[in-house]
Amino acid sequence: MSHNIRIVTLMTDFGTDSPYIAAMKAAVCERLPQAVVLDLTHAIPPQDIRQGAFVWREFTGTFPDGTVNIGVVDPGVGSERRIIAARCGGRFFVCPDNGLMTYILQENPPDEMIELTNQTHWRPEISNTFHGRDIMAPVAAAIAGNVPLFELGTPLDNKTSPVLFPTTQPLFGETEWQLEILYVDHFGNLLLNATVDMLPQARLDKSAHNPVVGISFHGQETNAVFVSHYSCREAGHLVLLEGSGGRLELAVVNGNASEQLSAKPGDRLTVLVS
Amino acid sequence: MSHNIRIVTLMTDFGTDSPYIAAMKAAVCERLPQAVVLDLTHAIPPQDIRQGAFVWREFTGTFPDGTVNIGVVDPGVGSERRIIAARCGGRFFVCPDNGLMTYILQENPPDEMIELTNQTHWRPEISNTFHGRDIMAPVAAAIAGNVPLFELGTPLDNKTSPVLFPTTQPLFGETEWQLEILYVDHFGNLLLNATVDMLPQARLDKSAHNPVVGISFHGQETNAVFVSHYSCREAGHLVLLEGSGGRLELAVVNGNASEQLSAKPGDRLTVLVS
Amino acid sequence: MSHNIRIVTLMTDFGTDSPYIAAMKAAVCERLPQAVVLDLTHAIPPQDIRQGAFVWREFTGTFPDGTVNIGVVDPGVGSERRIIAARCGGRFFVCPDNGLMTYILQENPPDEMIELTNQTHWRPEISNTFHGRDIMAPVAAAIAGNVPLFELGTPLDNKTSPVLFPTTQPLFGETEWQLEILYVDHFGNLLLNATVDMLPQARLDKSAHNPVVGISFHGQETNAVFVSHYSCREAGHLVLLEGSGGRLELAVVNGNASEQLSAKPGDRLTVLVS
Repeated sequence: MSHNIRIVTLMTDFGTDSPYIAAMKAAVCERLPQAVVLDLTHAIPPQDIRQGAFVWREFTGTFPDGTVNIGVVDPGVGSERRIIAARCGGRFFVCPDNGLMTYILQENPPDEMIELTNQTHWRPEISNTFHGRDIMAPVAAAIAGNVPLFELGTPLDNKTSPVLFPTTQPLFGETEWQLEILYVDHFGNLLLNATVDMLPQARLDKSAHNPVVGISFHGQETNAVFVSHYSCREAGHLVLLEGSGGRLELAVVNGNASEQLSAKPGDRLTVLVS
Repeated sequence: MSHNIRIVTLMTDFGTDSPYIAAMKAAVCERLPQAVVLDLTHAIPPQDIRQGAFVWREFTGTFPDGTVNIGVVDPGVGSERRIIAARCGGRFFVCPDNGLMTYILQENPPDEMIELTNQTHWRPEISNTFHGRDIMAPVAAAIAGNVPLFELGTPLDNKTSPVLFPTTQPLFGETEWQLEILYVDHFGNLLLNATVDMLPQARLDKSAHNPVVGISFHGQETNAVFVSHYSCREAGHLVLLEGSGGRLELAVVNGNASEQLSAKPGDRLTVLVS
Repeated sequence: MSHNIRIVTLMTDFGTDSPYIAAMKAAVCERLPQAVVLDLTHAIPPQDIRQGAFVWREFTGTFPDGTVNIGVVDPGVGSERRIIAARCGGRFFVCPDNGLMTYILQENPPDEMIELTNQTHWRPEISNTFHGRDIMAPVAAAIAGNVPLFELGTPLDNKTSPVLFPTTQPLFGETEWQLEILYVDHFGNLLLNATVDMLPQARLDKSAHNPVVGISFHGQETNAVFVSHYSCREAGHLVLLEGSGGRLELAVVNGNASEQLSAKPGDRLTVLVS
């Protein structure tokens, strides 16, 4: 664990231009001036818990141990929904209990998980509409400042398990793989619900340096080439490759796969490997 | 007052992608390395002083005492317009004298207010087009570093009062309230020119837990429910509630009130309470 | 040189909302916690090396000496393209060797320039798609922490000169100047390929305080006035002025020159001065 730096990341659906972001950062920094507060993203579509859950799964793995990740995608703010905090393999998470932890918990059984109930570290006045500033940011500052989770609330047990949403597993058949698009990045690259580790390599023709597969999507068929990096092919070619997080991506070299295929998160596609 | 942290916030109409923002941050940090510089927002519509004034009124109240807020919405840059600095109840403000302080001064008589005239803390070379970097950022760093205002310029007196723009007060009649939309947030929520404190509660049927009122807007009538938080009603319902700053908001649960009503800042609406 | 602050700036084509930005910042901060990491911009159009090169030329000049600028516009990531680092008059640059340094090198012969080859400071695992996080950010942290360039790689010599793209020089004739639009800022101001220092002032009627010239663009002719700052003219007027970086700008007072003229980077225009 890095003892010299405590990173707190913010992920919200506030929009990048939102003045609410600075309010959360101030709430962290006034409690822990040495914290480094980083914007993970504020562009989660409003109330889109699935997109938030994916961003956490995909983009929090390379931060230093001890990093505290706050997630505010919170359509239930002010209702009875719980706020939770978890420790999973050196990473901490603080969020409403509405499914934001789904992908993280699928892959990382939590070492510790609580409902926030101890108000000691909260702001003195709690609004009905902004628990990100009033509860989650101050608690994240406390965690980053080494307050143990058990001092911040009540452990979750089997009866009080966190909210999870159902997810789609990839299907790897003899002749085709059925996959789902989970995320579209800024370049229009399509991030799929499989990592490269999961692929049944035996089904690809290993004698080919860059195997070609079929892609069936929205009733159309096209081809894509497995490559190691974008510039392996000319601009405009459709390629499959391992993204920076180990995830399988479908991309257009120097182009925008999402626009070219009219593809969006939640869409399914089939890779034809026979 | 927090002595461990000095926050400087930036509000501009530069656009969030603008390289000019980093230039201002560097101008603060090279003078005060321990400063925490936060982006309040850079999405004020170009030259829209009213929107900037509202963001300052609405979103600077929860920062720690001693925070210095810089506002650069400055169509008159390079002209004879003054640059001013003010201290209002623990908060500091630095901006061109063009009305950006209007809402702040309505609610907070300044404890101290000056025109910036002492060039000691300015950048050595002053451009004609970027006083945010050359004057306001260095002066804000000086203030955050505890240089008193009186060392930075000349006090404003009655003859030299700051520029203010005219504002619309809410009207609370027997049967209807006439209100104005001041701001549309990222979720499309409409922030109105009234706080919940100002509402004549006697006009609402207190026997109802969530009173229903009429909304007259653009010649159309509809209903809205007073609620304590968004998720009190099903998605799609129009609700009135107290926002995180105490302000009256008109919102659509899990939806976008601005789009649904075609509403924008400056529009007026009537709440029918009889 | 400022010894109290080490600024690292980030310029990418990731988009301002991208979670990859925080990954790069964490890679800097975990190696150099005292670094101040600033976003120069993340809105370079995808793979647009020329726009990135211009932003570096235009907006890195006012940072304190010792600032390290990282540029990730990197369509060739994962290929054999080199990654380079340079020191030019107190500024450092780290980027793929693809032309991003073109404008900087035109004006600042590098004091030192290397290909990054020493992996000591890189992340232990190098992905094929994200060298910004895995190589450039850690190396920038090392430079900001005073590791000398010669320890980080191999000097570039004449045989291994960096990639440059061809640029267009302004032409100053007796009766007309032929210029190119290099950049459109957030206000729609057009930044041209000439600084005010380069202008043949003799061709302007010096007896006029604000000389009027013709502008020929896309086959249309119009007039513009030389002014010292935007508010010298009424809203809607076309003006030529010196921007905050000394560059010649064509602007519409309180308006948007890019929209009004349908102008974009790469377009050429003629100033008629006879």
